[in-house]
Amino acid sequence: MDMITSTSETRGGEGKSEGKREGLDPDRLLPTSEPELSIARELYESVKDDPIISPHAHVPVEWYAQDRHFASPTELFITPDHYVTRLLHACGIPLSALGVGQKHLTSEQARNAFVLMGKHWIAFAGTPMRYWFEDSLQRVFGITTPFGPKTAGKIYDQLSEMLPLPEYSTRALALRFNMAAVSTTDDPVENLDAHDQINRDLKLPYIVMPAFRPDSYLEPARADWPDRARALGAAAGVDTSTYDGFCEAMRVRRRYFKEHGAVLSDHSHFDIAMQHLSEKKVRELYAQAYRGIISSGDAVLLRRHLLFDQATFAQEDHLTMTVHPSVYRDYDPRIRAIYGHDAGGDVPARADFTRALKPMLNAYGNNPDFHFVAFTIDETVFSRELAPLAGFYPAMYIGAPWWFLDGPESIDRYFHAVVPYAGFTKLSGFIDDTRALCSIPSRHDMNRRVTAGYIAGLVAQHRISMEDALELIKFEVDTLPRHVFKISHLKKDIKK
Amino acid sequence: MDMITSTSETRGGEGKSEGKREGLDPDRLLPTSEPELSIARELYESVKDDPIISPHAHVPVEWYAQDRHFASPTELFITPDHYVTRLLHACGIPLSALGVGQKHLTSEQARNAFVLMGKHWIAFAGTPMRYWFEDSLQRVFGITTPFGPKTAGKIYDQLSEMLPLPEYSTRALALRFNMAAVSTTDDPVENLDAHDQINRDLKLPYIVMPAFRPDSYLEPARADWPDRARALGAAAGVDTSTYDGFCEAMRVRRRYFKEHGAVLSDHSHFDIAMQHLSEKKVRELYAQAYRGIISSGDAVLLRRHLLFDQATFAQEDHLTMTVHPSVYRDYDPRIRAIYGHDAGGDVPARADFTRALKPMLNAYGNNPDFHFVAFTIDETVFSRELAPLAGFYPAMYIGAPWWFLDGPESIDRYFHAVVPYAGFTKLSGFIDDTRALCSIPSRHDMNRRVTAGYIAGLVAQHRISMEDALELIKFEVDTLPRHVFKISHLKKDIKK
Amino acid sequence: MDMITSTSETRGGEGKSEGKREGLDPDRLLPTSEPELSIARELYESVKDDPIISPHAHVPVEWYAQDRHFASPTELFITPDHYVTRLLHACGIPLSALGVGQKHLTSEQARNAFVLMGKHWIAFAGTPMRYWFEDSLQRVFGITTPFGPKTAGKIYDQLSEMLPLPEYSTRALALRFNMAAVSTTDDPVENLDAHDQINRDLKLPYIVMPAFRPDSYLEPARADWPDRARALGAAAGVDTSTYDGFCEAMRVRRRYFKEHGAVLSDHSHFDIAMQHLSEKKVRELYAQAYRGIISSGDAVLLRRHLLFDQATFAQEDHLTMTVHPSVYRDYDPRIRAIYGHDAGGDVPARADFTRALKPMLNAYGNNPDFHFVAFTIDETVFSRELAPLAGFYPAMYIGAPWWFLDGPESIDRYFHAVVPYAGFTKLSGFIDDTRALCSIPSRHDMNRRVTAGYIAGLVAQHRISMEDALELIKFEVDTLPRHVFKISHLKKDIKK
Repeated sequence: MDMITSTSETRGGEGKSEGKREGLDPDRLLPTSEPELSIARELYESVKDDPIISPHAHVPVEWYAQDRHFASPTELFITPDHYVTRLLHACGIPLSALGVGQKHLTSEQARNAFVLMGKHWIAFAGTPMRYWFEDSLQRVFGITTPFGPKTAGKIYDQLSEMLPLPEYSTRALALRFNMAAVSTTDDPVENLDAHDQINRDLKLPYIVMPAFRPDSYLEPARADWPDRARALGAAAGVDTSTYDGFCEAMRVRRRYFKEHGAVLSDHSHFDIAMQHLSEKKVRELYAQAYRGIISSGDAVLLRRHLLFDQATFAQEDHLTMTVHPSVYRDYDPRIRAIYGHDAGGDVPARADFTRALKPMLNAYGNNPDFHFVAFTIDETVFSRELAPLAGFYPAMYIGAPWWFLDGPESIDRYFHAVVPYAGFTKLSGFIDDTRALCSIPSRHDMNRRVTAGYIAGLVAQHRISMEDALELIKFEVDTLPRHVFKISHLKKDIKK
Repeated sequence: MDMITSTSETRGGEGKSEGKREGLDPDRLLPTSEPELSIARELYESVKDDPIISPHAHVPVEWYAQDRHFASPTELFITPDHYVTRLLHACGIPLSALGVGQKHLTSEQARNAFVLMGKHWIAFAGTPMRYWFEDSLQRVFGITTPFGPKTAGKIYDQLSEMLPLPEYSTRALALRFNMAAVSTTDDPVENLDAHDQINRDLKLPYIVMPAFRPDSYLEPARADWPDRARALGAAAGVDTSTYDGFCEAMRVRRRYFKEHGAVLSDHSHFDIAMQHLSEKKVRELYAQAYRGIISSGDAVLLRRHLLFDQATFAQEDHLTMTVHPSVYRDYDPRIRAIYGHDAGGDVPARADFTRALKPMLNAYGNNPDFHFVAFTIDETVFSRELAPLAGFYPAMYIGAPWWFLDGPESIDRYFHAVVPYAGFTKLSGFIDDTRALCSIPSRHDMNRRVTAGYIAGLVAQHRISMEDALELIKFEVDTLPRHVFKISHLKKDIKK
Repeated sequence: MDMITSTSETRGGEGKSEGKREGLDPDRLLPTSEPELSIARELYESVKDDPIISPHAHVPVEWYAQDRHFASPTELFITPDHYVTRLLHACGIPLSALGVGQKHLTSEQARNAFVLMGKHWIAFAGTPMRYWFEDSLQRVFGITTPFGPKTAGKIYDQLSEMLPLPEYSTRALALRFNMAAVSTTDDPVENLDAHDQINRDLKLPYIVMPAFRPDSYLEPARADWPDRARALGAAAGVDTSTYDGFCEAMRVRRRYFKEHGAVLSDHSHFDIAMQHLSEKKVRELYAQAYRGIISSGDAVLLRRHLLFDQATFAQEDHLTMTVHPSVYRDYDPRIRAIYGHDAGGDVPARADFTRALKPMLNAYGNNPDFHFVAFTIDETVFSRELAPLAGFYPAMYIGAPWWFLDGPESIDRYFHAVVPYAGFTKLSGFIDDTRALCSIPSRHDMNRRVTAGYIAGLVAQHRISMEDALELIKFEVDTLPRHVFKISHLKKDIKK
């Protein structure tokens, strides 16, 4: 670890004068000209060592709890990261060659996959995936050799030697990442024992928050929905054969999650519309769904009502509600059949928030204690829908730019699109949303750099003072995520 | 007034050298690096003192005519400005605490509201509302103390002392703003006496133009539509029980408006589609509407025809036709019920111009004497729809970026999106669209700065000469609004 | 020709110091500040003299083969270029005054049109049309006098003297443009003799590739479709009275095109949806269409199937498939009636690729040997649809920003929108798409400058090395077009 610390800190003072420097430039991603550069440097410096708060992510809870080791650099950096496998697949490399959907890679397969990525590294130029990877290599492993066709094999070998060492276990890495709080994404029937262990038993400096993600329990069109409803009932100890029982079970499980550290419920239906049916109607549709005989049209109505209910429950238990709609999941059915879910065949769809959220916002949007965060992967809604809605409704916040929009360019466009009419205080703070453990610090650091650049622009244009600017960047990195996801309460609320 | 003049002019020469300067930077909003900065400074200087032409706005005509005084700084800067109240509401402050929908505020309520805005001032960082407010404070009131949590109370007290003074009456302010022409927005049955008084009797340096806004008279689905049709007839002295009578009444009132200084008709239906029905069909639907028995589908057809008629009338009377479509008015019915219209619960909708305008453009778009200006609050149509249409049809002009797009960032995006295929000469010139009197000079000045920056970019990229650049910025500030809204004729056409 | 060479090369070394320089700035369109400017200069220099590869354009094949002469500067620069005539029409100049739809212009008419463009030259400020024209004037004709109201007549006269000279024939110009390969756009029944002549008989340094453009043969809703089907059959020597015959005829003609140098089939239906019908269904619909009795709904189904078939054929013959959907052709029927097709009355429509392409991409998108290039004139799909799809499917490439998006601003937006999730290697390389011969080198040069600027930004942000940057710009200019359109094979494949 000495090595890592030293390399990641070496770069501070000397700067530009030393000619061709080894490793990443300390000013990377910052504005490239004055006066913005100096301003951004000061802003970035003011938060770069702040603890990471990560309210939405997908790293398995066990990795935070236990000393697991990655079998190979490929299984760390390539196979589980669909950002990376997608683009390699787009370059003509079969997903199978990258280990996707396979149980285990031979060491030859693993090395080949890594070398193949090196060979195609030019295809990653200008992508955030390249940025995160190169940043992680240096930040986490102290490797300053530029990655590429000629060096991939050597770097693979270096990494292979490090990964079995104690300081590169999943937990050791997480400890090193200066995280204050990180979220997982969980099924409502989970027992959350691993979360309890981390938050209660282990003396870890970070908390790991489960997130209540009931998508499949709210889709009555699914063939397995009656089974899901029963499983939810079993987990809650409530009979879910009626709509009222289902609601009660949801309330019980949400409360259970909250007691085990959850701060939010997360929802990723294709259609985010919410709608409130009459009691009579919803009981009728629920009964049909429970017997597996609901029509597809009625299943839509029921789903919209059940989702509306989640907002209603949030009025009571105060979990923040987050939505990630408008994704075509498994766009390619053949890829799905061979490689499983999340193998890359997901693509964005056109989003609609204004019409879809109207009933819910009309009902709850004016309640400042309710926090609703809308994420989008269709950036046309930033200025047209999300900023105007969040710039009016106290309950509504604009999620950080997500998947397909989480690179430096789109984050910058996001700020320019939403801040003018919603202001900084109606943003969500950064979300890394990652399955790739080592990308967590790189992604948060990237965001701090890009945010510093955007705010520096406001200062350089004489629109805000440096004092305001320092407050704003602290907002983005610390105040906002704590506030929007009510994480400050959580520390003391955690079940002992 | 000496004080104001002096502070607003102090800032010219000295520039950057003097360390921490009091007040706003003279280069605010201009490009931040060379060579753009020097070029933009020269461009901005060339128009910064040009008279204001404001062809679309919402300040009450009485304010221009009479010496009215604001009861408090809150009733000047906060209560009537839904841009400001929206964002404060989004921060969790009830609209009632800001005076919205209330008859009068006690002086304690008024002061509290102002202080509350100061407390939340960080929420306005990066918004145009903040820019306009800070600019107005200095420009109009000579206040250079930075506004914020610590100073809001003191600034409130300073303003409170000034507002009753003669030089801060509404008319005194308007006189100081160097306006050549400003528009109001008016009901077709208005008698326009106040306009006459200003334009004919008073020796004012500005003209105040009424705008013909017949929205409610063109919506046969409204329950009160038959009453509206009759009221229009009464104002015109024409029997409107038939379609032909209705057309005649419209013609009469449009002419009346034109004779009293109007240069445009303005239309803000959600749906901007125009369509021409057969004589037989339209007479039939009109008769049904007049008896209050038209179906909702037919009401849409009739509305589209009546709107098409407005374009037809414009071929005869040469009023410019402006449209502001695709706004969900009163998105929140509860807010509407408590606080009335325009209380902030309006949000943008997805716009469609290309299909909607086809029949009208096919009929009249090739007539260069007809001027049609399309405004949008959905910026996705700038490069896809408005620039290609205005870049082909001589009748069509692209409205300045409006509501939700009227900040520096979106104005800059607008230029980059529309100029390449429509050119500068098919823009509308700037529109302030404001209800906030003191924001008028600040908004126009902001636009001149941002326009200077955009044009400076073209010069710096060696795409146009400095001579061209000076012509372009004069175009935007002076030539275009006069041309597009035919304001040069108007001075002599005004009814004596 | 000495004159031309000398002027176009003079500008290298001296640069800025010489005060007001004659002619265009050598740094035009490059970034305006350091460090980007120096980086971009180096990148631009590295490719500026590379041969032009132009895989999609509309210049008549005869111009490349023969020594034709333009009758006047107007018939070179104005009449055939709907980019230019559109905007002049938008300024109120009738298309007839520009020669559109007329057989021949008198010399007075021609001169008047040119002078009229000069008079309205300010309307072109900030447009790519202005940039290309000014660049061509200097690059091709050595004219460095700035074009404008005062100089248009004089420049017209200068050009008029040059055009009859041997070195300004169409072929002489093309030879001077340093082209390696250029495409025409052709009807499937064309005999391609002129292409053969160029590629086989003449000793020209460039190849001219026909492009297979079967639009009208795939639109069974057209009244003349049965005739088209028969004409196709006649050209192929196959009976097309059945669906199977039609397929065979398509295969034959595609093969014929390929044998004569074609590398792609191009498709510009309004709706790009592709769909695969059952054998039974398609035979049934085909029979109805052949008898001219197909319903409009079924004609849509059949068209989608026939377009799907083109993708199927590409699996066999390996022609690249390009699509240019979502254009309202002949938006203005009156303009169409008077002036014919392509007279400017075309406007973009909202695009949808994700849903429309799903069946085809599910079937063939994972085949890396199949190359499918999607062009759009609705830029909202760049980050939402095209980058995610091309960033996953090996067969899919993102077409260069096209018509209405081919200016410097939109090309820059395009890179920022698509590279982050698709990478540089999934772009198509530049497409000039022009009917204006002299704009070819100017458009390619513009693209190289803008591309250099974008890549320089990545270097300045310390995201890629200079070595990577030099590789990327070579990719864009040379590697990509050869790869995506399989042009490297073509040289040796050409029928001898």
